[in-house]
Amino acid sequence: MAIRYELIKVCKQTGARLGKLHTPHGVIDTPIFMPVGTQATVKAMTPEELKEIEAQIILSNTYHLYIRPGHDIVKKAGGLHKFMNWDRPILTDSGGYQVFSLGPLRKIKEEGVEFRSHLDGSKHFISPEKAIEIENALGADIIMAFDECAPYPADREYVKNSLERTTRWAKRCKEAHKNTDNQALFGIIQGGMYKDLREQSAREITAIDLPGYAIGGLSVGEPKPLMYEVLDYTVPLMPSDKPRYLMGVGSPDDLIEGVLRGIDMFDCVLPTRIARNGTAFTSGGKVVVRNAIYQEDFTPLDPECDCYTCRNYTKAYLRHLVKCNEILASRLLTYHNLYFLINLMKNVRQAIMDDRLMDFRNEFFEKFGYEK
Amino acid sequence: MAIRYELIKVCKQTGARLGKLHTPHGVIDTPIFMPVGTQATVKAMTPEELKEIEAQIILSNTYHLYIRPGHDIVKKAGGLHKFMNWDRPILTDSGGYQVFSLGPLRKIKEEGVEFRSHLDGSKHFISPEKAIEIENALGADIIMAFDECAPYPADREYVKNSLERTTRWAKRCKEAHKNTDNQALFGIIQGGMYKDLREQSAREITAIDLPGYAIGGLSVGEPKPLMYEVLDYTVPLMPSDKPRYLMGVGSPDDLIEGVLRGIDMFDCVLPTRIARNGTAFTSGGKVVVRNAIYQEDFTPLDPECDCYTCRNYTKAYLRHLVKCNEILASRLLTYHNLYFLINLMKNVRQAIMDDRLMDFRNEFFEKFGYEK
Repeated sequence: MAIRYELIKVCKQTGARLGKLHTPHGVIDTPIFMPVGTQATVKAMTPEELKEIEAQIILSNTYHLYIRPGHDIVKKAGGLHKFMNWDRPILTDSGGYQVFSLGPLRKIKEEGVEFRSHLDGSKHFISPEKAIEIENALGADIIMAFDECAPYPADREYVKNSLERTTRWAKRCKEAHKNTDNQALFGIIQGGMYKDLREQSAREITAIDLPGYAIGGLSVGEPKPLMYEVLDYTVPLMPSDKPRYLMGVGSPDDLIEGVLRGIDMFDCVLPTRIARNGTAFTSGGKVVVRNAIYQEDFTPLDPECDCYTCRNYTKAYLRHLVKCNEILASRLLTYHNLYFLINLMKNVRQAIMDDRLMDFRNEFFEKFGYEK
Repeated sequence: MAIRYELIKVCKQTGARLGKLHTPHGVIDTPIFMPVGTQATVKAMTPEELKEIEAQIILSNTYHLYIRPGHDIVKKAGGLHKFMNWDRPILTDSGGYQVFSLGPLRKIKEEGVEFRSHLDGSKHFISPEKAIEIENALGADIIMAFDECAPYPADREYVKNSLERTTRWAKRCKEAHKNTDNQALFGIIQGGMYKDLREQSAREITAIDLPGYAIGGLSVGEPKPLMYEVLDYTVPLMPSDKPRYLMGVGSPDDLIEGVLRGIDMFDCVLPTRIARNGTAFTSGGKVVVRNAIYQEDFTPLDPECDCYTCRNYTKAYLRHLVKCNEILASRLLTYHNLYFLINLMKNVRQAIMDDRLMDFRNEFFEKFGYEK
C-alpha cells in the first residue's frame, strides 16, 4: 500500500479529524491545504519557498502535463518530483475536470473522452486507462481516478448517468493502475447536489477498495450553504480509516467548514490566482492591494502575519509593484496567500488538538468579516 | 564627500583598474556590473536573491519612479532603499535618457524638457534642477546629472549643441544638489561618435569638479568597434582618481572590452530582459532555452555554473517553463543571467589582480564564441 492514514484524534467540539498521511515522499499532517502547481510549478514560487512556508504536499494537473511537456518527457526526467525539483509528496488529478471544462472541444463516450488541445487544437483521447497510464508516468504519490465532474446546475438524469459512468471508470482505473506500491489511487464521489445520488455514488465508489476517497463536483458555482449541505450527508458515508479529500476548495471559510465536516485534504488555485490579481488574504479579511487607500500606507499587508512579505514590505510598495505589473508583486502576494492558508490549517489542526475548533471558527469568521 | 574611489591596482597586461568604491551603503568592488531595477525592483528578483548572487549595487530609474509611484511617496517611505528593502548601494539615472527616448512626446528647451507620461499622457517638465530634486528625494548613493543622450546616427551640429547643453545642465545639477554628504553626483560625457566632440565634452564635464564621471550615448545602435574606438580616446581624458561609469552596457564582450579600456562601472537591462524572453548566457555562449533541441536535455543550463538554477534544474524543465510562460522561468533565468555577469566581473577582477586580463579576455571570447 502506497499510503497509510493515521487518525490522531477527533475534536470533541466538532468531530473534525486530526491525522497523519504517510506517503512515499514523507508524512503529511491533516487537515491540509495543497497548493496547486498546474504546470509542474506552483506559479511564482520555488520549491524552497514552498518548504519555507511549510507546504507539505502540492497538486499538479495531469491534463496540462499530458499536453505539455508530455508525460513521456516527465517520465524520462525521472518523474514529476525530479523534473520540478520537489521531493515532498505530490497529488495529481486525473485530467477529468480539465477535459470536461473544455466544453465544445470534447465528446464523452463510455470508452473515454475525445477532446482537442486548448493549445493547438490537436485531437486527443483520454480513457480511464490512459489517464492512469499518464499518472503512472508522472509518478505522484497520490493519483486520482478519471471521473466526470457534472456542471452546476445539471438535471438529475444527467448527473445520475454521469456518476454511474464515473463508478465504472473508477473500476477501470483501479484495474489499470500498475504502481500500487508507490502511488495511491483515490476514487471520486460525484452526484451533484442530489442527496440520493451522492449517497449512491458514495456507496459505489467506496465499495471499490481504494486507499482514499475524494468528493468532486463541489465549489462549481453552487451557493456555499448547498455545498455544506452536500458535505453534511456525504462525508459520513466515507470510511473513517482513509483520507477524505474535498477537491477544488480553498477559500478560508470553506476550508474551515470542510474540516468541521470531517474533510482532511483540500486544493485550490484561489490563493495563487488572486495573488497574481493583486488580492491578499489577511487576518482582517481580503485586501485589494491596488486600492488607492494604500498609496501611502507604509504598514505591512497583514500586521499579524510574520511571513517574508509582511516582515519586509509595505502596502505602499506592494501596491506600486501591482500597478507596475511587476513579477515581484505576484511573488510576494502568492507567498503571503499560501502562507496564510497553510498557517490557517496549522491553527485549525491545533484547534482540533485543543478540542475547540468551533470556537476557533467563530473567532476567525468574526475577524475575517465572514457571517457567523 | 559621499563616495571615495580607492585604486587598488592596475593590470600590467592591459591597464585595467581594480578598485573599491566607498559609499554610504557599503563598499563596492570595481569593475562592477550593476543590475537594473527600473521600477524599484530588479525584475523577478528579491533583494535577498540579489545578495545571494553577490550584487553589490543596483540601478534604478528616476523617470519611472517620478511617474510611478512618485518621488514624494518614495521619500515618505524613507527613501528608495527602505521603500524597496535594499540596504546596499543604489545608483539612479537622471531620467534624461528615458525622457529623450519618448520621441514625439517630448520637447527640449534650454530650461529643460517638456514631455508626456508614457502611462497616461499627462504633461510634465523636467529641468536639471527638477531631476536633482527627484534624485535627492529618492536618496540613491550615486545620482546622475540630467543630460541629453544624442541618438545614433546624429549630425555633428546636433551633437555639438546637445553636448554643450549637457555641460550647462551638469553645472546646474551641481548647483541644485542639496545632499552632497550622502549622494554623489556624477557628470556624463556625451559627444556621440565624434572624437573632437567627445574630447570637448570630457574636458568640459571633468572641469566641473564631481565625485565621478560617466560616458553616455554609447551602445545606442552603433557598431561595437566604433564604441570601443570612442572609449579608446575618451577614457584617458577622465581623471584616474575617480570612478568611470559606462552607461547602458552589459553584454559579456562589451563588459570585458570596457574594463580593458579603464571602465569601472556598468549597467544594462540586457541580462534580465533576455532572461524573460527565455535566453541565457552560458560559458559556451548564448542558449535559447525554447529551442526544440532542449526538449529532452536533462543537463543543467550551464554545466560550469554553480548558481541555484544550474544546481537544481534541467534545460528540459526550463524549456517547459518558458513555453508555458511561467513566472518561474523568468525567475530562474534572470537569476542565472545576473549570476553569470556578476561572476564574470568577479573573474575579471581576479584577472586584473593576476595581471592577465588580456589572456582572460581571449580565453573567454574563444569559449563564448565571440570573434577574438
